[in-house]
Amino acid sequence: MPTTSIRGNKMPDSPIRKLVPLANQAKQRGIHVYHLNIGQPDLPTPQRALDAIRSIDRKILEYSPSEGILSLRQKLAAYYHKFKINVDVEDIIVTAGGSEAVTFAFMSCLDPGDEIIVPEPAYANYEAFAIVAGAVIKSIPSKIEEGFALPPIEEFEKLISPKTKGIMICNPNNPTGYLYTQSEMNAIRDLVKKYDLYLFSDEVYREFCYTGAPYISAFHLEGIEQNVILIDSVSKRYSECGIRIGALISKNAEVRRNVMKFCQARLSPPLIGQIAAEASLEETDNYLMASYNEYVERRKFLIDGLNRIDGVYSPIPMGAFYTVAQLPVDDSDKFCAWLLEEFNYEGETIFMAPATGFYTTPGYGTNEVRIAYVLKKKDLAKALIILEKALEAYPGTVYKHNH
Amino acid sequence: MPTTSIRGNKMPDSPIRKLVPLANQAKQRGIHVYHLNIGQPDLPTPQRALDAIRSIDRKILEYSPSEGILSLRQKLAAYYHKFKINVDVEDIIVTAGGSEAVTFAFMSCLDPGDEIIVPEPAYANYEAFAIVAGAVIKSIPSKIEEGFALPPIEEFEKLISPKTKGIMICNPNNPTGYLYTQSEMNAIRDLVKKYDLYLFSDEVYREFCYTGAPYISAFHLEGIEQNVILIDSVSKRYSECGIRIGALISKNAEVRRNVMKFCQARLSPPLIGQIAAEASLEETDNYLMASYNEYVERRKFLIDGLNRIDGVYSPIPMGAFYTVAQLPVDDSDKFCAWLLEEFNYEGETIFMAPATGFYTTPGYGTNEVRIAYVLKKKDLAKALIILEKALEAYPGTVYKHNH
Repeated sequence: MPTTSIRGNKMPDSPIRKLVPLANQAKQRGIHVYHLNIGQPDLPTPQRALDAIRSIDRKILEYSPSEGILSLRQKLAAYYHKFKINVDVEDIIVTAGGSEAVTFAFMSCLDPGDEIIVPEPAYANYEAFAIVAGAVIKSIPSKIEEGFALPPIEEFEKLISPKTKGIMICNPNNPTGYLYTQSEMNAIRDLVKKYDLYLFSDEVYREFCYTGAPYISAFHLEGIEQNVILIDSVSKRYSECGIRIGALISKNAEVRRNVMKFCQARLSPPLIGQIAAEASLEETDNYLMASYNEYVERRKFLIDGLNRIDGVYSPIPMGAFYTVAQLPVDDSDKFCAWLLEEFNYEGETIFMAPATGFYTTPGYGTNEVRIAYVLKKKDLAKALIILEKALEAYPGTVYKHNH
Repeated sequence: MPTTSIRGNKMPDSPIRKLVPLANQAKQRGIHVYHLNIGQPDLPTPQRALDAIRSIDRKILEYSPSEGILSLRQKLAAYYHKFKINVDVEDIIVTAGGSEAVTFAFMSCLDPGDEIIVPEPAYANYEAFAIVAGAVIKSIPSKIEEGFALPPIEEFEKLISPKTKGIMICNPNNPTGYLYTQSEMNAIRDLVKKYDLYLFSDEVYREFCYTGAPYISAFHLEGIEQNVILIDSVSKRYSECGIRIGALISKNAEVRRNVMKFCQARLSPPLIGQIAAEASLEETDNYLMASYNEYVERRKFLIDGLNRIDGVYSPIPMGAFYTVAQLPVDDSDKFCAWLLEEFNYEGETIFMAPATGFYTTPGYGTNEVRIAYVLKKKDLAKALIILEKALEAYPGTVYKHNH
């Protein structure tokens, strides 16, 4: 039997999805599982998107252009303009979700051995996409005690070497819910300019900022327009994760030329997803406002509830729909598996993502979990009760705080 | 401005799509362009697939499982059994088209510097996907005078080094239309067994074999079941290239474990595409028979017509819906661009794929083009007239045969 690749072997298991088999087994045993592990909103997809799909009158479901359907790219440009992101249609390349956008950005800009600096905890799949590109992530831990604010920019500068090609941020942040401030973004801008780095900025949660603080896009930063690669996706804002439509936006023609070669190799983004995404962009603000209001309530309810449980601490997330909470457990991987394999409270249990997978620094995140508040308040209420009961029953619960 | 990646820079332009801007400009000038460049059939997508999309009754277009929807994988297993490909549901992983299947196969099995042997001309994007994985393609030219039959297996063996990890074939072949014989497949099997190589086998055109000779799947070869990675796609057989649904099939659990990590990183294959693909698999044999009959006629018509043009030669393809034809031109890249930029006959022109992009050996394919017979006979008739008139007018036409 030939050997598999070293790269494939060192690909991390998804912290969000690796426990899915255990969840499926629990369901087969008749246990109801609350999914707090994955950013799959339970809010309805816009009716317009569903209607657009249902009224497709094509005879042939054919390839679309490699860069995406023009009318979709035009609507995306108009959408970004509403956020004062001044990009042209030609700057926008449609991808199969934000995932493909990150992959193609890394493939186009980074060679094997090149380094990017990422504040952690970070969206776990950045590490996976870096491995795909052979690039190396240098992490700087942010701290739960500081609400996961951007670590001091000096910490970034210490890591810069001749191999450093870029910085990757997610704003508002998955998994922490942190929203970078103007001064933090300015510090990043200055560093990007000083060392002529790429700034990969994943901003798929821009609609979900809860504190009144402004959303600062990487494209709002002056003087680094050629350095910014914006990652976007319609998945979260329109609750249509399954259609796999995202975008890579860059004003750097060289970058776009490379990205387009990867796009042409994979032929097209999904056709029907593009039709749904285009219809979603015509949705009224009422739709997004209703989603926003729902998340505001859930956030308050969840965070209050978490902080009332003995030994549990969660900062108040400022955006997105996740929080990273500290739990009084020996090992969050073991605890999350135990919840699915051995525990239930009145026939129900919860599925959370162990935070270890969101750090690359060994030993970090062992007493933290990521919780997505993508469920209705009544479900979150039950999930909180289950968490409390589980911590009482779990053999590895230790009522002291450590990192 | 930071530099782009060496890998991105060396990614080839798609020979199928790189001339698209010239085609678009021709269309803007009011010229009708016959698309012979791309394997986008003009046959209708199965009505069942369209109906399935139109009757979606979901409220949320959510993520599907990373490995694909179970009921689709079950229908795929039953479909393969009809071809005596005895795979289980668990062997089947749904991907975003055959493109993603090849990419994940290479990423999971090959490390940077690893080599695979590919008879050429070959589907151009194999080279692109090899670059994505950092792998190296070692090519063995097949010859138009021999109808692009498999080169002698001794030629393969000469290229085997400690870095050789696999062989990649496409059967029936894109771009040549060649169908590998039992004895050719046995020779490949023996080599794969002798050196314990992977056999990546792209068999997306299995329905389209025209000569009565049998279709031999890599999975029909005994003793190398753990070595075979089958690439599939519903795009061609159901004329639904835009839905982006393919599959990677392997009986090797180690390979599948690696592939699944790449699948989880990109979250899901397209949801609506999977729904369409599943419905397509329920289509009656009449649909495929009608497609088959149509291609049989077009093939005869096109090949006869090509061989009647002075200086043009095409072997008779045995499968798929492409042929590689020799033209009496100085440079097929220049000729194909000239057709779009400077030529028209009665307001019409043709778009063909220069064959240079299907070879990695420099200098090969400069007087060959790939032609897809995915248009109606009346359109092919016009395309043949345009080709004849173009060769008469093209400054670089040279009426002698060379390779």
